Amino acid sequence: MKDVIFLMNNLWVLIAGVLVLFMQGGFILLEAGSTRMKNAGHIAGKTVFTVGVASLVFWAVGYGLIYGEGNAFIGLSSFFYGDFTTMGEGLAGSVDFFFQLTFATIALTIAFAGFAERAKLSTYVLFALIFSAAVYPVVAHWIWGGGWLAEYGKQDFAGSTVVHLTGAMAALAATLILKPRIGKYNKDGSSNELSGHNQVFTALGVLVLWVGWFGFNAGSTFGVDSAFFGYVALNTQLAASAGAVAALFTAWAVTGKADIVTTLNGALAGLVAITASCAFVAPWGAVIIGLIGGLIVFYSMKFFEKAKIDDPIFALSVHGVAGVWGTLSTGIFATPELAAINTGLPGLLYGGGFTQLGVQALGVVSSGLYAFVVSYIILKVMKAVMGSIRVTKENEIIGLDLSEHGSYGYPETMIEREVQPGT
Amino acid sequence: MKDVIFLMNNLWVLIAGVLVLFMQGGFILLEAGSTRMKNAGHIAGKTVFTVGVASLVFWAVGYGLIYGEGNAFIGLSSFFYGDFTTMGEGLAGSVDFFFQLTFATIALTIAFAGFAERAKLSTYVLFALIFSAAVYPVVAHWIWGGGWLAEYGKQDFAGSTVVHLTGAMAALAATLILKPRIGKYNKDGSSNELSGHNQVFTALGVLVLWVGWFGFNAGSTFGVDSAFFGYVALNTQLAASAGAVAALFTAWAVTGKADIVTTLNGALAGLVAITASCAFVAPWGAVIIGLIGGLIVFYSMKFFEKAKIDDPIFALSVHGVAGVWGTLSTGIFATPELAAINTGLPGLLYGGGFTQLGVQALGVVSSGLYAFVVSYIILKVMKAVMGSIRVTKENEIIGLDLSEHGSYGYPETMIEREVQPGT
Amino acid sequence: MKDVIFLMNNLWVLIAGVLVLFMQGGFILLEAGSTRMKNAGHIAGKTVFTVGVASLVFWAVGYGLIYGEGNAFIGLSSFFYGDFTTMGEGLAGSVDFFFQLTFATIALTIAFAGFAERAKLSTYVLFALIFSAAVYPVVAHWIWGGGWLAEYGKQDFAGSTVVHLTGAMAALAATLILKPRIGKYNKDGSSNELSGHNQVFTALGVLVLWVGWFGFNAGSTFGVDSAFFGYVALNTQLAASAGAVAALFTAWAVTGKADIVTTLNGALAGLVAITASCAFVAPWGAVIIGLIGGLIVFYSMKFFEKAKIDDPIFALSVHGVAGVWGTLSTGIFATPELAAINTGLPGLLYGGGFTQLGVQALGVVSSGLYAFVVSYIILKVMKAVMGSIRVTKENEIIGLDLSEHGSYGYPETMIEREVQPGT
Repeated sequence: MKDVIFLMNNLWVLIAGVLVLFMQGGFILLEAGSTRMKNAGHIAGKTVFTVGVASLVFWAVGYGLIYGEGNAFIGLSSFFYGDFTTMGEGLAGSVDFFFQLTFATIALTIAFAGFAERAKLSTYVLFALIFSAAVYPVVAHWIWGGGWLAEYGKQDFAGSTVVHLTGAMAALAATLILKPRIGKYNKDGSSNELSGHNQVFTALGVLVLWVGWFGFNAGSTFGVDSAFFGYVALNTQLAASAGAVAALFTAWAVTGKADIVTTLNGALAGLVAITASCAFVAPWGAVIIGLIGGLIVFYSMKFFEKAKIDDPIFALSVHGVAGVWGTLSTGIFATPELAAINTGLPGLLYGGGFTQLGVQALGVVSSGLYAFVVSYIILKVMKAVMGSIRVTKENEIIGLDLSEHGSYGYPETMIEREVQPGT
Repeated sequence: MKDVIFLMNNLWVLIAGVLVLFMQGGFILLEAGSTRMKNAGHIAGKTVFTVGVASLVFWAVGYGLIYGEGNAFIGLSSFFYGDFTTMGEGLAGSVDFFFQLTFATIALTIAFAGFAERAKLSTYVLFALIFSAAVYPVVAHWIWGGGWLAEYGKQDFAGSTVVHLTGAMAALAATLILKPRIGKYNKDGSSNELSGHNQVFTALGVLVLWVGWFGFNAGSTFGVDSAFFGYVALNTQLAASAGAVAALFTAWAVTGKADIVTTLNGALAGLVAITASCAFVAPWGAVIIGLIGGLIVFYSMKFFEKAKIDDPIFALSVHGVAGVWGTLSTGIFATPELAAINTGLPGLLYGGGFTQLGVQALGVVSSGLYAFVVSYIILKVMKAVMGSIRVTKENEIIGLDLSEHGSYGYPETMIEREVQPGT
Repeated sequence: MKDVIFLMNNLWVLIAGVLVLFMQGGFILLEAGSTRMKNAGHIAGKTVFTVGVASLVFWAVGYGLIYGEGNAFIGLSSFFYGDFTTMGEGLAGSVDFFFQLTFATIALTIAFAGFAERAKLSTYVLFALIFSAAVYPVVAHWIWGGGWLAEYGKQDFAGSTVVHLTGAMAALAATLILKPRIGKYNKDGSSNELSGHNQVFTALGVLVLWVGWFGFNAGSTFGVDSAFFGYVALNTQLAASAGAVAALFTAWAVTGKADIVTTLNGALAGLVAITASCAFVAPWGAVIIGLIGGLIVFYSMKFFEKAKIDDPIFALSVHGVAGVWGTLSTGIFATPELAAINTGLPGLLYGGGFTQLGVQALGVVSSGLYAFVVSYIILKVMKAVMGSIRVTKENEIIGLDLSEHGSYGYPETMIEREVQPGT
């Protein structure tokens, strides 16, 4: 019987890993749709390529740094993972490895949202290598690999902090160092909308991410025990729904127009927010967490726009701010029964006091700070060594498809435009 | 052992639910591809948003109205579903809930096909709320929730009637009340083709729907017993294939051109038709059901076109007519062995007489009528209260991206077009 | 217990089959993205339709020709598959059938890459019928159906030879007979780039194929024994990653530009290469197999370009050359432990000598030759009977959307272009 359950755990977690990998398709669509035609081939293609880099780095060192024998700060064994006979307590080594690998690739893709439409290809390549080896594994070790935050009882069921916040803090560092895109801000301080070119891509991307998120969240049960994945899935669905609805109505009420981009970001914010807490809260809690996620994503987008932080794919708002909210929400909404299953404390609303909330805040601050500072230093060093990590002004205007890869992603449309200028 | 099978049932049905949710990605592509560029962002984005509305309504009241304790007409308990400890006989409560939720969102999306390119955003929001609470749950209760049609022995394995016909009847009501799109019909009664703008989207959408349909149909086994899901999958694949092939050859033979749209609708018609009968018929029966589905979708499309019923995404033909055919086909092709497993009667061809066929027809008429009449009344009341449920003529010409959401879905392409008129 | 494992095997293989079917979505995107706008609706739509044809032929005769009782050359029973009660040793008949069916559709889609942008619709229809009945099943029987190559111990875990090489050889025959597209080669022998129109589609297509490949490779375990699917998945992920990285750097180093198309083809080449060997090699072997796959795909693309073999979707390089490399690589990198599990011999590097490598080479040559010669004859006969298998010059210039299906796939864009010529 143990054996059968073991196999079923593995089957579920493998499928969940495939769903998480599919989220990269969602990111391809979301990122390409949110940016301009001249950069579309670049941004879609680099996602495939950086998934490759992140996977190889995870194999070589990432997994070992997170889960290897080590200390409270870092793991230090199991590099170049390769044993097919390892069978863990709950999962085969290979399945666990594959599932964890897909998470590492997601964190990197989130980070790259901050590089969009202006970073050199060589910047992508180098940063992919270094982030995958030196940023993500450290935070993941602290929280998931038995590191010091785990010892404090930090709860992060599926990675609001480990994956989303870490990625978003790297994106923030990149955004600050790379500076806004040409044309984003005027001399008088006002800003222009550099609209993404394809909302069908964006909407489909969000739907694909939503679908893949069931691997992300419900797969983080690491098994089939009590069919608990179903409960996690239910909370995930409700929070995503609430986020979309809240964002739509907020945009509608405040601006008079229910814009598509905000609505879509609301769904994502609901998903990011529930990622930490999906296994800890009641469905009504999930609805509220999602609603607040959708609400704050609207104001967060406005805030970064005004603060002159140019974030083309809204990673700071969606993965950063909503990631923080989600991590904290666990300390507020965790029910006693569910917290007990996951060896945590009840949330504030259930009389759990501020202990868990405090640990969650500590986790957010320390992880966020680490990811931001280290990413900032990496990029500054890269800039010093490489001369520049941003494409030239001419290349940015021409577009990265042509400058970084030698051909347009939409050759027919772009060449027509050259022949018939006026736009 | 019971426990292990229980977990496996839940695993399968959860994954099936994720596949059904993925069908919304198919609808995003199908609907956006079948409509014009000026409405593309709107139609893609509203799908994400209305999935959210339908999910929240299903959580609040839908599930309870269908499966709660009640009477032959409606259920009346289990609102605001939330207990994570409920373990049903075959499935955990949460998994069953999630799976059923995904079906409710599909019915709504089908209904909205009839609103395409002309309904106001507020119409979408309100109708999503009311349909999800007052139309879909009633029919679902009648057939799947132990209601009066279930007592008659109505068979609808995965929802040809409950999901597809219900959605299509609401679409019909909307189409009639909203009236045709500007430019669809000329004064002399002839019609113009308002072609969808992207057949790659349409084709990919159909493929995604096809893929997701294995969750829809094979997931409706609600478990892994006898690996029967495999048989259901096999019938599903054959019917979809036969539908595509039949539609292609019919269009080719009749019009001289094997048009892509008809071929794709043939695949969908095969899928819709087999939805009712996939667990009841032999593979050769599935092939015939699919072939006839592909054939009638061609003529049905012609019929609605001539009848001046403007159905941009062909929901009436694909989900309505093929849904009826599928529901009836069960009464014709059900084999004695398979009907017995599902506590039904053999079909007409196997000497089962007209009993099952009659019950199927009763189900179609009563369910279709309920969905149509109630949707019609809802929309008429909405129209009276809101003044209009359709955008203004100016806004329809500008497109719903701009009028309802404040920005184009394809800003670069649309703005170029403004600068260089002539098309 | 046996029963539970049996059900779990079926569950996994069904899901894997759904993933393989989803690969057709990847091909829709890859093919449409790699070709021009005037052919986009055609190429996307024909994929849906030919999946239908291949499925019906597989049901009628394909499955029986491969797995029926017969001789070393061909199977000859189990036509018109239909028994829902058959339970094999490891899998239910229906599940096994469905999984195998999805592979047959992939081989056909690969073959059609060689027909792109110039074959008549009737050519597609006829070749789909004949290839699915007379080419694919023969090779599949030889290697997977207990035929003569299986008796020699030919190893092809998931189909580098059976699916990819067979498809690619048919594509080669088509390419040679159809001749290059208008405008591809100049009179002086130099070539022009007829760039695909949408790299977002191409990149997303590759990601979808990558995701689906976990069904293809890890599903070819045919069950959950020892959770070995996880190990296969791990190798698959590493090889794909290595292929993408190798191709990017090769293109960058040789041409000065890291072009997107080559990078994406590198990922695919890694996937095709590991398909044969994923269950036989160590992870470091998978990385090397993928790296070499990515490297050779770059040079192979150059080779075919120079050899005036016009291969718009790079099927010959990706599925052909990488398929050969993958099949041979098993004979080089197979570890003794893993080879033993799969009743094969260790590879060259592990002291297994040249025996397995020789058998692999024999398999490549005989299967490739069969697929090429028979496809060549079929197309020559079709050409003789039909007058031509290629569209007229006028139709090729207009595009196949209009000539074969009567309407543009992108009507708004294409009609604008007609109104404003100059490109």
